Amino acid sequence: MPRPLHLNPDRLFPADPATRAIARALYESVAGLPIISPHGHTDPAWFAGNAAFGNATELLLVPDHYVFRMLYSQGIALEQLGVGNPGVDPRAAWRLFAGHYHLFRGTPSRLWLDWVFAEVFGLTTRLDADTADSHYDSITAALATDGFRPRALFDRFGIEVIATTESPLDTLAHHQSILNDNRAGRWQGKVITAYRPDAVIDPDHEDFRANLARFSELSGEDCFSWQGYLAAHRRRRADFKAVGATSSDHGHPTAQTTNLSSPDAEALFHRISRSQATAADAELFRAQMLTEMAAMSLDDGLVMQIHPGSFRNHNAQLFARLGRDKGADIPTRTDFVHALKPLLDRFGNESALSIILFTLDETAYARELAPLAGHYPCLKLGPAWWFHDSPEGMRRFRRATTETAGFANTVGFNDDTRAFLSIPARHDVARRIDCSVLAELVAEHQLEDWEAAELAHDLTSTLVRKAYRL
Amino acid sequence: MPRPLHLNPDRLFPADPATRAIARALYESVAGLPIISPHGHTDPAWFAGNAAFGNATELLLVPDHYVFRMLYSQGIALEQLGVGNPGVDPRAAWRLFAGHYHLFRGTPSRLWLDWVFAEVFGLTTRLDADTADSHYDSITAALATDGFRPRALFDRFGIEVIATTESPLDTLAHHQSILNDNRAGRWQGKVITAYRPDAVIDPDHEDFRANLARFSELSGEDCFSWQGYLAAHRRRRADFKAVGATSSDHGHPTAQTTNLSSPDAEALFHRISRSQATAADAELFRAQMLTEMAAMSLDDGLVMQIHPGSFRNHNAQLFARLGRDKGADIPTRTDFVHALKPLLDRFGNESALSIILFTLDETAYARELAPLAGHYPCLKLGPAWWFHDSPEGMRRFRRATTETAGFANTVGFNDDTRAFLSIPARHDVARRIDCSVLAELVAEHQLEDWEAAELAHDLTSTLVRKAYRL
Amino acid sequence: MPRPLHLNPDRLFPADPATRAIARALYESVAGLPIISPHGHTDPAWFAGNAAFGNATELLLVPDHYVFRMLYSQGIALEQLGVGNPGVDPRAAWRLFAGHYHLFRGTPSRLWLDWVFAEVFGLTTRLDADTADSHYDSITAALATDGFRPRALFDRFGIEVIATTESPLDTLAHHQSILNDNRAGRWQGKVITAYRPDAVIDPDHEDFRANLARFSELSGEDCFSWQGYLAAHRRRRADFKAVGATSSDHGHPTAQTTNLSSPDAEALFHRISRSQATAADAELFRAQMLTEMAAMSLDDGLVMQIHPGSFRNHNAQLFARLGRDKGADIPTRTDFVHALKPLLDRFGNESALSIILFTLDETAYARELAPLAGHYPCLKLGPAWWFHDSPEGMRRFRRATTETAGFANTVGFNDDTRAFLSIPARHDVARRIDCSVLAELVAEHQLEDWEAAELAHDLTSTLVRKAYRL
Repeated sequence: MPRPLHLNPDRLFPADPATRAIARALYESVAGLPIISPHGHTDPAWFAGNAAFGNATELLLVPDHYVFRMLYSQGIALEQLGVGNPGVDPRAAWRLFAGHYHLFRGTPSRLWLDWVFAEVFGLTTRLDADTADSHYDSITAALATDGFRPRALFDRFGIEVIATTESPLDTLAHHQSILNDNRAGRWQGKVITAYRPDAVIDPDHEDFRANLARFSELSGEDCFSWQGYLAAHRRRRADFKAVGATSSDHGHPTAQTTNLSSPDAEALFHRISRSQATAADAELFRAQMLTEMAAMSLDDGLVMQIHPGSFRNHNAQLFARLGRDKGADIPTRTDFVHALKPLLDRFGNESALSIILFTLDETAYARELAPLAGHYPCLKLGPAWWFHDSPEGMRRFRRATTETAGFANTVGFNDDTRAFLSIPARHDVARRIDCSVLAELVAEHQLEDWEAAELAHDLTSTLVRKAYRL
Repeated sequence: MPRPLHLNPDRLFPADPATRAIARALYESVAGLPIISPHGHTDPAWFAGNAAFGNATELLLVPDHYVFRMLYSQGIALEQLGVGNPGVDPRAAWRLFAGHYHLFRGTPSRLWLDWVFAEVFGLTTRLDADTADSHYDSITAALATDGFRPRALFDRFGIEVIATTESPLDTLAHHQSILNDNRAGRWQGKVITAYRPDAVIDPDHEDFRANLARFSELSGEDCFSWQGYLAAHRRRRADFKAVGATSSDHGHPTAQTTNLSSPDAEALFHRISRSQATAADAELFRAQMLTEMAAMSLDDGLVMQIHPGSFRNHNAQLFARLGRDKGADIPTRTDFVHALKPLLDRFGNESALSIILFTLDETAYARELAPLAGHYPCLKLGPAWWFHDSPEGMRRFRRATTETAGFANTVGFNDDTRAFLSIPARHDVARRIDCSVLAELVAEHQLEDWEAAELAHDLTSTLVRKAYRL
Repeated sequence: MPRPLHLNPDRLFPADPATRAIARALYESVAGLPIISPHGHTDPAWFAGNAAFGNATELLLVPDHYVFRMLYSQGIALEQLGVGNPGVDPRAAWRLFAGHYHLFRGTPSRLWLDWVFAEVFGLTTRLDADTADSHYDSITAALATDGFRPRALFDRFGIEVIATTESPLDTLAHHQSILNDNRAGRWQGKVITAYRPDAVIDPDHEDFRANLARFSELSGEDCFSWQGYLAAHRRRRADFKAVGATSSDHGHPTAQTTNLSSPDAEALFHRISRSQATAADAELFRAQMLTEMAAMSLDDGLVMQIHPGSFRNHNAQLFARLGRDKGADIPTRTDFVHALKPLLDRFGNESALSIILFTLDETAYARELAPLAGHYPCLKLGPAWWFHDSPEGMRRFRRATTETAGFANTVGFNDDTRAFLSIPARHDVARRIDCSVLAELVAEHQLEDWEAAELAHDLTSTLVRKAYRL
């Protein structure tokens, strides 16, 4: 007999009945608020073209590195799941996934996927080997209907605004097309971009110099000269702003910044743009560019996000065979106190500057990040990120940062995902956990109930709009 | 309508009703015990001179770096709050604070200040923009009365003994004056000092050599010779003991120790006392001095406190403009296992030596500090410090250290504050959290109730007296 | 009046009544399962010879470094406890222990020992100064009876299999003798070994070269040549497999691995086998040997355990006086992401390889270990180890690893102990905490009750058998 799938309305709330009742009331006050998604990785082509999503495997399994990394860790070949293998039989891949769905017990992927199954597709049985085919068929059939096209889902999900993330090498044609449709009254969905220049900032990127050439083309500047390169950034940031961007984003191996003199910066750029950079030069250049980006932010008002500390493509054989983003990025210990000082020495006291810091190293929450954000006017803390975007991860984030940085130095939730269908589920988990943490403070008489209600609204809406200038 | 201010008698106890009842009973057994404050930063001049504290802003806002750092992080200029700006209109500064008091929701400052408002001043409404003036007036009027002078508050707070912290460059005149009053029967308050020699030990102190000159004057020794310098420490430690000191305190950037031969130590001192020290020499000298201080402790019995790991004055612009202690000290990763080894190799097995270790790097609790203190006879663990002096911080401390170091290798609570009026509130938070942690152990049947009651008393009194030799 | 000793049947379960009821039901479903002990340090001579254990002090106090380190930290000389002092009066040592038993409140030692007193010896009063003698007498008298000999206790404890840990310099005579008795039908207890080659791999071992000589003797290979040395490992691994070993174990100061060319490895071995190794060569050799051991594991199927990050013999004076394992091993910060990469670059994608990682640095759980084990097919996570083998330690382990690595990338519990009598208590604590963690997930509606029941069984049995190939 198939196991019923039922989302308990009290899920993720604290077990203590009195605390749970407080959490439930808080949650009810924010559950219906629109989704504001200021940072993520959905594909603007979906919303521009509004083509139907393919089948269940193509939409829910192949692109989800949370899912396929777990399956891979248990000995299932990625190719069998369709990863790097477009020729896979999607139903066979789905069956493999379904037969191992129990591996996700206790993980956020399970929470998100169960929500998608139940709420998006109306499925009433749990995914397992027995229900694999019926789930596959139901989902795939639904995806072929108009109600499951990207724009319909966007509207159904109550998304007020979503930010995608593009490289400076992107033409922004999809965003332009969406804007045209907005203006022509064909669709009102607000899809903005964010400026993510890693591909033209990281000298260790495998295509760095080719990227500079393309950057020159797109910007009309000579990106092999330091001044031209900076001008290209300024120009493309302006292009991004023109299609709605309010932020830039920087995914560096460390949080290192530096503040070179202009001649030193130019000499460094000369070296790294002409030949293979040494490891030290590459790190120094990335460090300098964070400071340059902060300077530009002061001019153009883009909020700066720093996502440091991921050791990308740790699995050398897998990278050689299948390339990037195959679930082999591993967090590393990350210093902020020394790393950010050069940038902060220059810009730290600028209230007009806004830098949102993220980390994969939770030891920095209470030790470094909350003390920094609880002092410097330009710093805010991004939410629990990636591996920590989970009930326990969010609880650890709030418990470690609130007592020093308060709530106002945080920025609400980021879904940070390309898994479009799970976006409401992700925001729902964040709202439930925030309300649970607030309920505990009320239950322990650290907050009044009306204060917690204000804070729940702040965390869901007010702080997000303010931090991301939306 | 103003919001009522009410301190719930069950605040900070666990939400589960059975556990809360246990916590409440434990708390009631220690709530009335006198305050023993073995480490802090109140000004002995207050208790010597017994002059009235000025106005609300001057007493509660301007000196409290917890408070003004949060306000600064949200874009409020320190000068507007009166920090580094004696000319500020104190009422205007207070209004600014009151209008942003909501920022402190979820922070310990909010717990401490609400207690001060309610219990010290009898205020019955919450601080906000609307109540700013009435609170300011009530507090300022009360402060002008005799019942709110330092000695009256000291007595009202039930303080059995309080330790202040002085530099070797202090004449100790205030402590002498208090002692004279004690002996003459004019006041019985016990105010002792602690020996904090950072200003004459840290070669990176901006006034280091001027300090050595003053150290020579006060001690009558030649502090530019190694032997004279050591003799000066011995002499001033004796002076400090004469006015009640039972401890020294060392606030170094790291916990590094070393154990140089006497000629090497002398040569090092020669270098650092004569010219600008290199960073390596400065660190080595601080490291050597921890070992020298331990040697002196074995002779004179002063308990040694080590407070390492704060990156002082991180904000360069602010330091240039306003100087030290402006809320810009940031914790750093701190090693103890390798750093303390040279000192421990020499003195680690001396039961007569007592070294109390503090950290701002909570990752060391379970990994390094509890294992060290659970082995070496000379080591004890100081309570959760500074940014971690908070409900969550204290819970993390107990949960991370108890299973390896037990309770007996900890030393009870330090308020560690210059915010005199908040001292009872801080001890109250510590007692409530300790009782909550103990209640959880009882509820989970790890402890009997009578054992928890003994431990609650130990943590509040017995261990403090024993560890600080009071 | 003596205090009664009573083990509450609900001990260690969450306080919330509904969650406790779930935990209790889960626990009841696994409490009776046999003990599988895949990694530990009991002495095979006990089970081979089946001689009676001596007195209470000799069995429960002298060999237990958890116990005597705590007593030592509070100023009690190790010699007075009988440590390194066979001439001690065992009753006097026991009295000293009993009089300080309160120090263990809140520690796992207290949980384990109370269980031993109550369940193994049927004592009904708590250990303290007053009951010291009666406990000593009862325990010592019981130990003289047949029912308390090693084999009888093994059977009574419901141990299905236990692994001991031997060096390649061990003749394995005891294991052979047990096997002979198994085959002859004299006893059915299954006692297997594990291959722990640190003494012939660590150039910093004080007897390293003497060990190589003995290694040559036992293996019949020339262990002063690189090829002979590797052949000796292969041969002895085969010997260990012949008496049941399914795993090797590696206790290195760090998790560093490397992957030298064969000539470079040979040259390195030449250096370290002939003269005192430099610190860098010693580390490089240990690093290379982890990779060599992984290569051999792929051939012979032994599961590889890595236990890194203990700073052994931190207390120099104590080591000089009393030698190893005197409670002075202290955890250190431990990197895995960079350290393991060379080994993983070579073997990381081999599903046939199984490497179980342990850590004393809990910061690695969520940041490094769960992401690594949640990706690489060859990696699994060992349970909370040593100082973290405790209720809070286990809770932190599950909460930090599950959301990224799930349950299936963990391997169940290790008691890892030489304290034979406490083994059931240790497994009982693990089962209670695992069931409590699962109960919380059920109470928060993250898991269904039937899923939690499956997982409780997995964590107790299925995953252990699978991970250790038992």
